[in-house]
This record gives sequence, C-alpha cells and structure tokens, in this order.
Amino acid sequence: MNLREEALSKHEEWQGKLEVVAKAKVDNSKDLSIAYTPGVAEPCKEIAANRENVYKYTMKGNTVAVISDGTAVLGLGDIGPEAAMPVMEGKAVLFREFAGINAIPICIDTKDTEEIITFVKQIAPTFGGINLEDIAAPRCFEIEARLKEELNIPVFHDDQHGTAIVVLAGIINALKVVGKQKQDVKVVVNGAGSAGLAITKLLLSYGFEKVIVVDKLGILEESEEWMNWAQKDISKRTNREHLKGTLKDALLQADIFIGVSAPNIVSKEMIASMNEKAIVFAMANPTPEIMPELAKEGGALVVGTGRSDFPNQVNNVLVFPGIFKGALMARATQITENMKLAAAEGIASMIEEGDLSPENILPKPFDKGIADKVAKAVIDSMK
Amino acid sequence: MNLREEALSKHEEWQGKLEVVAKAKVDNSKDLSIAYTPGVAEPCKEIAANRENVYKYTMKGNTVAVISDGTAVLGLGDIGPEAAMPVMEGKAVLFREFAGINAIPICIDTKDTEEIITFVKQIAPTFGGINLEDIAAPRCFEIEARLKEELNIPVFHDDQHGTAIVVLAGIINALKVVGKQKQDVKVVVNGAGSAGLAITKLLLSYGFEKVIVVDKLGILEESEEWMNWAQKDISKRTNREHLKGTLKDALLQADIFIGVSAPNIVSKEMIASMNEKAIVFAMANPTPEIMPELAKEGGALVVGTGRSDFPNQVNNVLVFPGIFKGALMARATQITENMKLAAAEGIASMIEEGDLSPENILPKPFDKGIADKVAKAVIDSMK
Repeated sequence: MNLREEALSKHEEWQGKLEVVAKAKVDNSKDLSIAYTPGVAEPCKEIAANRENVYKYTMKGNTVAVISDGTAVLGLGDIGPEAAMPVMEGKAVLFREFAGINAIPICIDTKDTEEIITFVKQIAPTFGGINLEDIAAPRCFEIEARLKEELNIPVFHDDQHGTAIVVLAGIINALKVVGKQKQDVKVVVNGAGSAGLAITKLLLSYGFEKVIVVDKLGILEESEEWMNWAQKDISKRTNREHLKGTLKDALLQADIFIGVSAPNIVSKEMIASMNEKAIVFAMANPTPEIMPELAKEGGALVVGTGRSDFPNQVNNVLVFPGIFKGALMARATQITENMKLAAAEGIASMIEEGDLSPENILPKPFDKGIADKVAKAVIDSMK
Repeated sequence: MNLREEALSKHEEWQGKLEVVAKAKVDNSKDLSIAYTPGVAEPCKEIAANRENVYKYTMKGNTVAVISDGTAVLGLGDIGPEAAMPVMEGKAVLFREFAGINAIPICIDTKDTEEIITFVKQIAPTFGGINLEDIAAPRCFEIEARLKEELNIPVFHDDQHGTAIVVLAGIINALKVVGKQKQDVKVVVNGAGSAGLAITKLLLSYGFEKVIVVDKLGILEESEEWMNWAQKDISKRTNREHLKGTLKDALLQADIFIGVSAPNIVSKEMIASMNEKAIVFAMANPTPEIMPELAKEGGALVVGTGRSDFPNQVNNVLVFPGIFKGALMARATQITENMKLAAAEGIASMIEEGDLSPENILPKPFDKGIADKVAKAVIDSMK
C-alpha cells in the first residue's frame, strides 16, 4: 500500500482518531449519585460561589480546544470545516500523546473574523486554552490579537507561533554550528503569510537585526503598494536598507534562508550567492524550496526541512504540546513573547553543545522529555 | 463523609470526569505520517470532494456535543457556564458509559437566543448530534425548534424530551398496572416549564385526550393573561373544559399526577381527591411534590419519583444514551415525534408484562441492554 491508501484505510478503521472516555466510572447508583445528580450539585455550587474553582473540580484546566474554520488546511487551502476534521483530530492526538492534554477538535462553519472571535469567546468557559489552527492570513492575525486581549486564557495560533518557535530553536543551534552571531547575520524569510510573519516577529524579538521578508510579489519594502496590512506593518520593522526586488536579490550575501513558501523556487546558484556557511531552512511541504542535497552543493552548511526523511526536521510538534503544558500548569492567562523565546531556548537546549553538528540541530519528535523541557522553560520564564 | 463531602472530594480527585484519549497511536514517525502530516491530507481531500465522507473518516458520526448556557442547571438555576461544567461532564460520562458515544461538554458564555442558535450552527460540522442541556424556558423552545429546522443533524433538548419520553414510558406501564386506558384518563401536569410542556406535548401525541397543565399561578386556560407564549400555545391544546383555578382544583377526580415542580406542594388530601388507583409521578428533586408513603396513604396505587432510593425512579438516563445511539447509527437528520414515541415504548417494553407491579414499572439505569433496546426501537421507527 502506498501512503495514500494506507492513510485512507487507517482513517476508515479508526473512524475518529480520538475517543472521549470516562475517568469517573458509574457502575451503580452510588457512583451515579456522586458523578451525576444529586452529588454533582456540590461542585456546581462551589464554582458558582467562586469561578476559579472550575479549575479544581472540572477538566477545564487540562483541556484545549483546537479550533479551525478550515480555510488554510495543510497545503490544501480552503477545504471547509468538515474536511479539516482529520487534521484537527490528528493535532488533538498529539496533544494527548506528547503532553497528556485533553484536546478537542472544533471545526466551525464561519469564515467571518468577527464571528470567529465571538464564537471563541463564547466557548472559552469550557477550556483552559485555545489552539487556533489553519485559519487563513491575514484575518488570523486580528482574530488572535483580539482574543489575546479579550480572553483570560492562553490563545495560540500554532501555524504562526509554533512554527516561529521551532524555527528560532533551530536557528539558535545552527548559528552555534556555523559560528555566527545573531546581531551580525542577514536573514531572508520567504513567504509573508501567517508563518513567515510570525517567524520574522520572533526573530526580531530575539535580537536579529537584519531581516528581509519576501513574498510572491517581491521583497517587502515599506513603500510598496501591494502589501496587506500585516505585511505593511512588518515592512516598517525589517529591510532597513530599503532593498527592492526579488528573492534572488534578497539572498545575495544573506546568511540564513527561511522558506515557508513553495516547492523548488530556490536554485543552487541562489544558495551560492549567499555568504559562506549559509543556513537554509526550506520548509515548504512536502516538496521544499530547494532539496537538501542541492542546497549543500550550492554551499549551505546547515539545511533543515519540514520532512522526517531528511536531517533537521523543523516540526512544530516540538513546540505546541510543551508550550500548552507549561501555560496550563502555570495557569497563564496568555502566551507572551517571553514564554515563546523561552520555549525556543528550551527546545534548542535538548541538543547538548557537544552533539551539535550540521546534521543535528533539533531534537526529533520522539525524543523523550521534550514537552516537559519546554513546559519547564515556559514556567520558569514566568517567574 | 456525607454526600456533599464525598462529591467534592471525588470531583477534586478526578479534576475532570472525562479524558480525551487517542485511538490512533503515534509511537514513531511512520505513525505520525499516517495520523498527521502528510498522510492526513488524504482523508481531508476525500471529505472536501464529498462532505458525507466526514462520517467515514472522522469521529463526527459517534460524537455528541452537550451544550449548555448554564441558565437552568439542576435545581440551582442560572449559575453560569463554568458552574454548569460538572453537570455537562457528568452527562458526557453517561453517554460514554451507557451508549459508547463520545460526548463533549460545551458550556457557553451567552444567554441570548439568537447567539445560542448561531453558536450551535457554527459548531455543528464537528458533531453527529447536539444535546441541549439546562437552558432556561421559554427560550429553550425557540432554540431547539430553530435548530431542528436549520441543521441536518439531530438536536435534542434533554430536559424537555428525555424527561417526556421516560415519563411516557412509565405511564404506559402504570396504566397497565391500574387497568385504565389512555383515552379515558384525566392527567394533571404540574410545572409549565421546559419539562412540563414537553411531557404534555408527548402525551397528546401518544393519544391522551384529557390533559390539564398547571403552573405556579394556576391552571393553564387559554383566556389567562399571565402565560408566556409557550404556555399560551399549550393552553389551546389542553384543558378543553376550560377549568380555572389551582392545582387542588385540577387534581379533583384526576387519574394521573405528573409533577416537575417544587417540593411538598401536594397534600395527602389532594391525592385522596383523585380517582381510585391514582398514578403519581412526583419528580421534583431532591424532595418530591409529595413523599411516596404519603401519596400511598392518600390512595395512590403507583408512585414514581426522580430518586434512586424509592421504587420507580423516573430518570432520563434511561432515554438519552439510547435515543442518540439509534439516531447516530441510523444517521437520522432529526429526532422526530415518532422516534420519541418509539423510544418510550422501547423503555416500557423492558419490563415483561408478568413482572409489572405498582413498584416495578420502569427499568433501572443499570439494567443491561436499555440503550440498545431504545436504539433499536428508534431505528425501527424510521423504517
């Protein structure tokens, strides 16, 4: 069986990758009188008297909603809420398996920014955190920003920040391998959607000074007319030399290429035009911006992709289980820039300095203890 | 420990009566590539091509949302969404334990009829059915009616229909015990909220002809001014003799009393004023409208309550697991009047005719096979 056949046959067999099971067993009327009426009235009353007790007596504190409108699913685009379900179930499986968190897929039938914000605010009492997933840019930015402001539980758009955090973790270690400093290097981020812009912002927060962002129509430069509002915003904080042109122009003498864009759009020659010991993260899925062997031929020293069949897989499964675990354990009211930076450093620290090499800058998803390490880093950053 | 202490200590120990677990295990990158990217794209594409495939490849078909706004929780009233969580979790536990259904508690932060309708429509793609719970009357009627019309999955307000169905099941068997016919008997329903009105409607559907509904302000009679719109509606289909007055007046020469109202409001004398071999369902919780021994002293032959410590517990846990199981298995688009009548007859048939007695008219929640029996009755009624 090829992957397609196997994926379909397994999904048909599972008919749902999750199950909701009872921790409270009800085998007789005594059990029923405790877990349900009349006993259940007691925790209800305690919570009605003090809302914080919801964390003491219910699943809220260890439960995350994985919410999508189905508009930007994988590389498939706007396929609708039902078709997004397998991805959200998969995500919820990873929350359970990697961090012991209850996660519930919620695929919703609206694409309207205000309606999505209202929906999430209405559902919030049930959950300890909200993981937004596969919501198209640029509305995902406003949705997340507004919810962060208006809710008192953590809201995290994984396509933005999960990706940004794991990229930063990889770059932290890659810089050690190539022996360069963050304030010196020129970084090119290709793809100015939700992931690309979030990566850029986190790199700036971390202290990178020379970042250029490129989208399909060219380099983001603040005088360009074609940019959406989110791109315009970032153009004022990047590309301080006001470079105009294409990806090719941007890559000249760059130190780091970060691609969250499209297959095969970077040539060996473009890599060769970068500075020595270049770092290339070509994360388009499933076909990278440039294949690793070609990037190496062009002179890149460290190459990462989104794929598990090459070294240095840049995968946000390294991030979201741990960052939510930490945020939930600490009862954080939001996920701050500091917590994200701490998470990136936590992931980077999974590889001992002595073990760092061009082929080994990031832990693998199944390495033990990643979520706990990230959770601890996140909690420590809040002290 | 008394019940209060025990309920609080168990709820604190559980910290959530449910758990979301993975059926799809991810132990290595092969597993990950099937359950998550890139393999997960395949079922997504199949569903995008034909939305019905969501039932084949996801948990939707066996998953119910238990949705509450927290406005009419147990006898506690409007305690808010957080405080409603223990009840909704408990309900979800019963869906799992009695019918093998995934149920997810969703407590929402709005009490507005239109907002609740919009919310449920938006969340519907994720679920195979919607169980509305503990939403105050009369808006619960409009919410359910509109959703039934506008959604293509079953929507069931358990406080109305679960209660109505189990009451009808009990009455079917009680009539056999007392040897009376549905078209002859005079029925008094006390409490014109969501449960009382739904019981009344189902009794009318089943063929009862003489029904009188009473609320705090007196007998529902179509010329009364104090009724809300839902009570007005039902007043046109009941009390065809235009009786006015109080519960006491209504009970004179009645055959059946059904109370979903308040503790201790029926006296022994009121029961004595009913016809011989009276049937009394005194379901106020935890203290019934009249205690069973007192009702018997007054001359009642069959007495049921909501409590497990007396015979004939009238408990909608006999209903909702099975009716949803049947509706989901048959992929019903709504729960019709026919399906409800079939469910009531299914429950009643759990007691063999030879085993019927004044103390034995309903199965007990832990009797084996109830949900399957109800599910089968529901499915058969659709053929």
